[in-house]
Amino acid sequence: MALIVQKYGGTSVGTVERIQNVARRVKKHRDGGDQVIVVVSAMSGETNRLIALAREISETPDAREMDVLVTTGEQVTIALLSMALKQMGCDARSYTGGQVHIRTDSAHGKARITEIDDMRVRADLDAGRVVVVAGFQGIDEKGNITTLGRGGSDTTAVAMAAALKADECQIFTDVDGVYTTDPRVEPKARKLDRITFEEMLEMASLGSKVLQIRSVEFAGKYNVPLRVLSSFEEEGEGTLITLEEEGVEAAKISGIAFNRDEAKLTIRGVPDEPGVAYKILGPIGEANVEVDMIVQNISNDGTTDFTFTVNRGDFDKAQGILQATADALGAREVVGDDKIVKLSLVGVGMRSHAGIASKMFECLSKEGINIQMISTSEIKISVVVAEKYLELGVRALHEAFELDQE
Amino acid sequence: MALIVQKYGGTSVGTVERIQNVARRVKKHRDGGDQVIVVVSAMSGETNRLIALAREISETPDAREMDVLVTTGEQVTIALLSMALKQMGCDARSYTGGQVHIRTDSAHGKARITEIDDMRVRADLDAGRVVVVAGFQGIDEKGNITTLGRGGSDTTAVAMAAALKADECQIFTDVDGVYTTDPRVEPKARKLDRITFEEMLEMASLGSKVLQIRSVEFAGKYNVPLRVLSSFEEEGEGTLITLEEEGVEAAKISGIAFNRDEAKLTIRGVPDEPGVAYKILGPIGEANVEVDMIVQNISNDGTTDFTFTVNRGDFDKAQGILQATADALGAREVVGDDKIVKLSLVGVGMRSHAGIASKMFECLSKEGINIQMISTSEIKISVVVAEKYLELGVRALHEAFELDQE
Repeated sequence: MALIVQKYGGTSVGTVERIQNVARRVKKHRDGGDQVIVVVSAMSGETNRLIALAREISETPDAREMDVLVTTGEQVTIALLSMALKQMGCDARSYTGGQVHIRTDSAHGKARITEIDDMRVRADLDAGRVVVVAGFQGIDEKGNITTLGRGGSDTTAVAMAAALKADECQIFTDVDGVYTTDPRVEPKARKLDRITFEEMLEMASLGSKVLQIRSVEFAGKYNVPLRVLSSFEEEGEGTLITLEEEGVEAAKISGIAFNRDEAKLTIRGVPDEPGVAYKILGPIGEANVEVDMIVQNISNDGTTDFTFTVNRGDFDKAQGILQATADALGAREVVGDDKIVKLSLVGVGMRSHAGIASKMFECLSKEGINIQMISTSEIKISVVVAEKYLELGVRALHEAFELDQE
Repeated sequence: MALIVQKYGGTSVGTVERIQNVARRVKKHRDGGDQVIVVVSAMSGETNRLIALAREISETPDAREMDVLVTTGEQVTIALLSMALKQMGCDARSYTGGQVHIRTDSAHGKARITEIDDMRVRADLDAGRVVVVAGFQGIDEKGNITTLGRGGSDTTAVAMAAALKADECQIFTDVDGVYTTDPRVEPKARKLDRITFEEMLEMASLGSKVLQIRSVEFAGKYNVPLRVLSSFEEEGEGTLITLEEEGVEAAKISGIAFNRDEAKLTIRGVPDEPGVAYKILGPIGEANVEVDMIVQNISNDGTTDFTFTVNRGDFDKAQGILQATADALGAREVVGDDKIVKLSLVGVGMRSHAGIASKMFECLSKEGINIQMISTSEIKISVVVAEKYLELGVRALHEAFELDQE
């Protein structure tokens, strides 16, 4: 008998009929002998409806009250799903975040889970009940309702799985698993049976938006086996996200991620003194602009060039700040380009296999794609190229690393 | 500085605009120096929308989950109202029934309040905040969400007022107070400035649906001054419901209540033996039919006639049961009439003033209205008459007892 946590998102529970479908699916698992905890989001559209009501009152509604408001969305779903399960003869009980004691800090709208008391849930599971938990929400020390931020239901599911030492945490989404790259760009993209937490983190943060990144971090930290599945297909094993140890090291490369939402800025001819990086990036961070890649080469004649990328939406703002910094530091010039993309090769195999970077650069060079920036980590190589090369680059790399083959 | 509890029903908070109106009203009180606790219902239509979702899943949805579902309605309102107050610069904080520790028994859908922990609320009030509480809901000992039954927000308001020893509990409704009778029947009906709890109970249970009867019982028991006010008029003192002591004894009669929703049944020629009343009414009660008036006259030749009234909707069912009882007891016959109404004269003055019953009967007799049944209590005289005499009877009594005059 396994203990499984299943998470269904807003689209999967978007109508009463879909909630009944979820109930049938949950019941099938339960009937198969597994203990099941189900975490659900608000019915799709509901959270936006509630936010719109708040916006009628204030452009910046009170954060505490916003959490009181939007958490009703998941509360509706847990009640309806539990009713549907009971109606099918499958005993079930619903819990809000507060009721199941998902303790968080007090950061309304983006709280972090600090503790879960699993007593009540265990008693229900032992009594043969399916436990239905409202995703995305918790309570702080003083009993105030908090939310984990949008999409936080994934995090709730993983946290429940960790607290109860579940055998698997299954995230049902509108895709049937994690792919080697975006199938809309490369039709030969192949679904991965397995991927490591680290690879998944690199894939997710690089723009493959299958899972909430925090939930993957959480799963990795507590070693909760995580599976991504389609909520609309009855069959299919999805993609299992696990620790490296479990036999995935044979694969050199898992996939190719990309991010269209980037722009790069370079400050040229900065005097190369200690603290210059801070002087350049400090004002950018203070303006709440997130910086992604940062590249600084060795200095030349006492000056250096410093390049970084930001979200495309922050390009103008960042450029203005950087120009002021350049003037203050006596730098030669500021140049920028918002027609770039980032391509990343991700795979734990890089650790033990040499020559992957050079193979990547060779492949891009053969296609005549100029590389503007390079940044590497243990399991990832990212390059910045002109936007127009995105599709060509992804397909060339996909083929070069034989990602369409098992 | 007074402590006031205000309760606004679903119509008063039916739109964001109306919620903002309520906020303005609350702020005015707060600015005037009073401490204010606001109890609110779900936005009108919301509870029905939620119930409809549940009905799509099951005709008899699980009672526990039904409470989880419908309590989201008030939770939305408390969040929006608190936001609106803060937006106007009036500090406020919302609480669900569970958060404010409104402890109830576990009777889902019709729970009774057992305890209120006023610690958090007091701290907020002392900090100058308006406290916004979700009506109609609580939690049981195990932390399950419960509801007090429909309309139970009045009860929440009175219970909060009792627990915090508030100076007044104000119930805002769509009427501007309690009237001597229904103005739609007697245009001369006059708004009462004051009425006693007991009179209000008789008026409410007899069909003047201004307040939830349980909230009046509660207010009487804990001596919470209760005021009924219009939520749509800025001015007006409404009607204050208090203990008798406070100078209302001068009024002989407070009002005339009536109930159209009655039907009567008589079993004739029942052998008059001990236990006969139980033998007649036992099966009726077992069938969940509520009995209102009961009249049994002295026996005649060892048999008696026994008459009672039921809700008109239960008439056929009750008649069938009664016929079976009549057969078993060897009674002569069963007769019924569902074209009757009950008129009631209510007033604490009856206790100290003789001759009120005879004046009532004289008045009806003058109008040629035949009285079919009479039943009396300490502060009420009820008569059953043919339905067609309802309006005539109400107006005649209203005039005879000079209810249109202060």
